Amino acid sequence: MDSNVEAYLRKHIPLSAGLDITVLKADHSNVSIEAPLPPNINHQSTAFGGSLAALAILTGWALVHLRLRSEGLVTETVIHSSAVRYDLPVKGTFKAVTEGITDKVWSRFTQTLAKRGKGRIRVTVNLESEGEVAASFEGAYVAITAKDDPTVP
Amino acid sequence: MDSNVEAYLRKHIPLSAGLDITVLKADHSNVSIEAPLPPNINHQSTAFGGSLAALAILTGWALVHLRLRSEGLVTETVIHSSAVRYDLPVKGTFKAVTEGITDKVWSRFTQTLAKRGKGRIRVTVNLESEGEVAASFEGAYVAITAKDDPTVP
Repeated sequence: MDSNVEAYLRKHIPLSAGLDITVLKADHSNVSIEAPLPPNINHQSTAFGGSLAALAILTGWALVHLRLRSEGLVTETVIHSSAVRYDLPVKGTFKAVTEGITDKVWSRFTQTLAKRGKGRIRVTVNLESEGEVAASFEGAYVAITAKDDPTVP
Repeated sequence: MDSNVEAYLRKHIPLSAGLDITVLKADHSNVSIEAPLPPNINHQSTAFGGSLAALAILTGWALVHLRLRSEGLVTETVIHSSAVRYDLPVKGTFKAVTEGITDKVWSRFTQTLAKRGKGRIRVTVNLESEGEVAASFEGAYVAITAKDDPTVP
């Protein structure tokens, strides 16, 4: 599953390849995606804030997408708003790790989706490096009910 | 100047090359950087939200950096927090365009920087495509007084 997700992201969202992602974990409860420093470095020799934001957006998207899929729900899911707070410089490999979505929040989301064909959900993603949370991300994603596409993992 | 800035960004922030940026304008009053859709596309055939966020972070950074430079101020400038609101799907080439920083806001920033060796400033960047603002970005950047580096544009 993880390698399917990675191949899908690299193919359909080519910036994933620019970030040089490795999907460490990807299931309906949590997603974790790693990236190395060199392709994501900045002028200060730390990770570029844009790389951190992009990795977090991707990771949050994957969680919403995979949890919907695990319940047989087929949607088009896109980012609606995002916010990142950068607390520490990232000096090495970094990974984006989703915080779990509570069942209560999830149910409200899927109920709205079922009723209106559209729902919105917030996802928190921590950006970790060298054992510390260096940045934190919150994204709101919108899912719209869609037709099935058997090529999507 | 614009081609210097582009070469600098592509060299020192390699994700710039992944985004395939073209610096349209880069001076102390405004910065505008364009990117084509293909390397920034997503699974919906629109621009990936992470590409939009990364381009905006880069563009806002360039404005703060170039305006500081134009006043002879040498700093290390990094992103502190960022927020993006995505309003419309981006279906073609897109560009990030800074909103000007008022002289009053700028003076307060440089006065704090002079006094404390550190200052923070907010920059608004609009992401435009096909003549419309598709997304808007607000970033807070922190500048810290540094030694001169003659290789920086």
